[in-house]
Amino acid sequence: MTDDLSNFTVSPELLERLMNEVSSFGATAGGGLHRLTASVDDGKARSWLSAQFEKYGFRRYTDSVGNMYGILECGGVDAPVLFTGSHLDSQPYGGRYDGAFGVIAALVAVQSLSQWFKGKNIRPQYNLGVVNWTNEEGARFAPSLLGSKVFAGTLSQREALASEDSDGVSLGDALKEIGFAGSDAPPDNVAGYIEAHIEQGPALEQAGKTIGVVEGNWGTAKYQIVFEGKASHTGPTPMSKRIDALLPAAKLISFLRQLSDETNGELLTSVGRLDIEPNSTNVVAGKVKLYAELRDIDKDRLEKARSRLEKEVKSLAQDGIRSEFKCVVDRPAGQFDPKLTKVIEDASTSCGYSNMRMHTIAGHDAIAVSQVVPSAMIFVPSADGLSHNESEYTAPEHLLAGTSVLARSLGLLATAPPS
Amino acid sequence: MTDDLSNFTVSPELLERLMNEVSSFGATAGGGLHRLTASVDDGKARSWLSAQFEKYGFRRYTDSVGNMYGILECGGVDAPVLFTGSHLDSQPYGGRYDGAFGVIAALVAVQSLSQWFKGKNIRPQYNLGVVNWTNEEGARFAPSLLGSKVFAGTLSQREALASEDSDGVSLGDALKEIGFAGSDAPPDNVAGYIEAHIEQGPALEQAGKTIGVVEGNWGTAKYQIVFEGKASHTGPTPMSKRIDALLPAAKLISFLRQLSDETNGELLTSVGRLDIEPNSTNVVAGKVKLYAELRDIDKDRLEKARSRLEKEVKSLAQDGIRSEFKCVVDRPAGQFDPKLTKVIEDASTSCGYSNMRMHTIAGHDAIAVSQVVPSAMIFVPSADGLSHNESEYTAPEHLLAGTSVLARSLGLLATAPPS
Repeated sequence: MTDDLSNFTVSPELLERLMNEVSSFGATAGGGLHRLTASVDDGKARSWLSAQFEKYGFRRYTDSVGNMYGILECGGVDAPVLFTGSHLDSQPYGGRYDGAFGVIAALVAVQSLSQWFKGKNIRPQYNLGVVNWTNEEGARFAPSLLGSKVFAGTLSQREALASEDSDGVSLGDALKEIGFAGSDAPPDNVAGYIEAHIEQGPALEQAGKTIGVVEGNWGTAKYQIVFEGKASHTGPTPMSKRIDALLPAAKLISFLRQLSDETNGELLTSVGRLDIEPNSTNVVAGKVKLYAELRDIDKDRLEKARSRLEKEVKSLAQDGIRSEFKCVVDRPAGQFDPKLTKVIEDASTSCGYSNMRMHTIAGHDAIAVSQVVPSAMIFVPSADGLSHNESEYTAPEHLLAGTSVLARSLGLLATAPPS
Repeated sequence: MTDDLSNFTVSPELLERLMNEVSSFGATAGGGLHRLTASVDDGKARSWLSAQFEKYGFRRYTDSVGNMYGILECGGVDAPVLFTGSHLDSQPYGGRYDGAFGVIAALVAVQSLSQWFKGKNIRPQYNLGVVNWTNEEGARFAPSLLGSKVFAGTLSQREALASEDSDGVSLGDALKEIGFAGSDAPPDNVAGYIEAHIEQGPALEQAGKTIGVVEGNWGTAKYQIVFEGKASHTGPTPMSKRIDALLPAAKLISFLRQLSDETNGELLTSVGRLDIEPNSTNVVAGKVKLYAELRDIDKDRLEKARSRLEKEVKSLAQDGIRSEFKCVVDRPAGQFDPKLTKVIEDASTSCGYSNMRMHTIAGHDAIAVSQVVPSAMIFVPSADGLSHNESEYTAPEHLLAGTSVLARSLGLLATAPPS
């Protein structure tokens, strides 16, 4: 593999300007983003991205679930496409970098690289593409990684479009409302996918490294657990007659923490959301839906925790409480494409950035895409490991490092792909 | 005290018809009511009540917080008024009887009694009034007993009108929206107040009695407790770095149940509502507001429980968790007017209904009103003690019994008041 790209760089000014521009759509007073999928602000961010595609000469496509693709045909009309990108939707009152960085890094890397090819009169073996996947976060619509799962064929288009938010609005209708219910076929000649993303944890910062070469993902199991009791008055109803759905939910939250404590925190457990009915001060809760997650890199430990959780839910269904137990995400630990991972590692080194191999604990579109296309990821540090919070922060030099490694990796692949 | 009312009866048909009519506003598929304060459906129920007032010749008044008063001047322009009534607002997906029965019983009792006076050419010492208090439930706006508290002067009109629902809509604006932001002064010559209500517990049913002569109320303390942690990603954030606000909330829910268990369920404890931020599946909860209640007839036991709760909240504020502890209702155990209670007991007996003295565990407008006007309550049985539930039910013969005792009590007071 020859590195002809030694004098190639991306523009820090362009990166900074585009990050600032995209951060304005759904900006919060707390310095973060509230840009839920297919909201008015998501629509504004998408229109802005579409205008960037047009400005830099990308061919533009939007598929039926709103995934946006922009392609620069630097390799020729029939050349397969190397894609890079991430997502523009955010968590409720989330951060500016989660997802948005990956889209902007993609835009800067692909545009710069294409200009460099043109200047050097190089015709690469691949076209270069930027993608914005719909509803990665799963905050407004379920499931998460929705757009990339439809692309990979692991979620049907019909099911995705029918997914409803908590007000009963379907994704299909919400996309129409903002003008991003497309009719283009998704690209079918994709040679590879690389996603740059903030780490969202503290590992890089703690190790003092700039680039995370992500070689695989942890196993994750997500559950929706329902406890059904009986709504009644919190006053005159004797304690012996109450069937309080919040009580087993509270016990399960404590149990899940206990499960993690028993592994010294190596197994990750969480409950982030409860839907309580009727959630009124003086009404004993009639129904609680609890959203639980288990994550582990150790397959056996994860399996053991899963079966203990199921058993605990059953044992909490007593004294009139009914329970339902549903696994909604079952994502086994997995590996990204080793050749792509190696290219990213080489690119990091040749760019002069300290780097380390690691696994992603969070879900990412690259995991969904990797089912059908060779994929890998590049991580950059998150200050204090904080994410899904308005205070999420990644330093400009780390954004530039991630963008540079992404561009260099795409450049290496496009000019001298590994055999 | 002479009982000249031995041949006076109320009309079962009128009672049934009015109960059916009022139950249509905000009726749910499950056979209950969803009629939140100052909602469109509350507005319809209010307009209907106003039309009934007009039909039966009541003078109509609406005060600034939307309390509706109807007065029949059977005693003369300057005679003081005996009021009866309750509330037309409901819990979210609550029952048909809670509150609405007391308003309909009042309408039927006052209208029938006034006709009877007219037929007998009797001029009673009092005028008779019907009242619909605003926002008794406290489900849409805080606090509960809002309208009756403003009447009693224990809550300011300004504070009441500024109270906001979870969408940030103020009570003042909501009342304007439905046309019930009145400008009439509340009546200032009120001689007494009797409220008929369903029991909402199983005591009458278990004792096999038809009428509850309510002589006082349990002590109640209500709290809003906040735990503040730090929102972060449920994936890559190491367990040791998570500051999960839902964890102390879960522990406190279990602790409150334990407090009650230690008294064999005699102390009543509950958590009916949690406001979780951001309440997103894959975000560690950054903030949880928990609504807790303690109720007991035993003053010392209640005080002890209150101080243990406060201590527990403090001890849960560790590992980065901040807590706030605010008592929002501090209602001591109290007694209703003994003369009124005796009149209700006599009326029950002379109507031929089995009865028993009891205390109310739930809060009622009569408790707020009793601060400034002699007050008492009449309870009728609730099937299986169930309330704040769409399946809430009171048999027609029990509704009739309560209405008859209410009318007889008002009749006794108006013609031969206790000295």
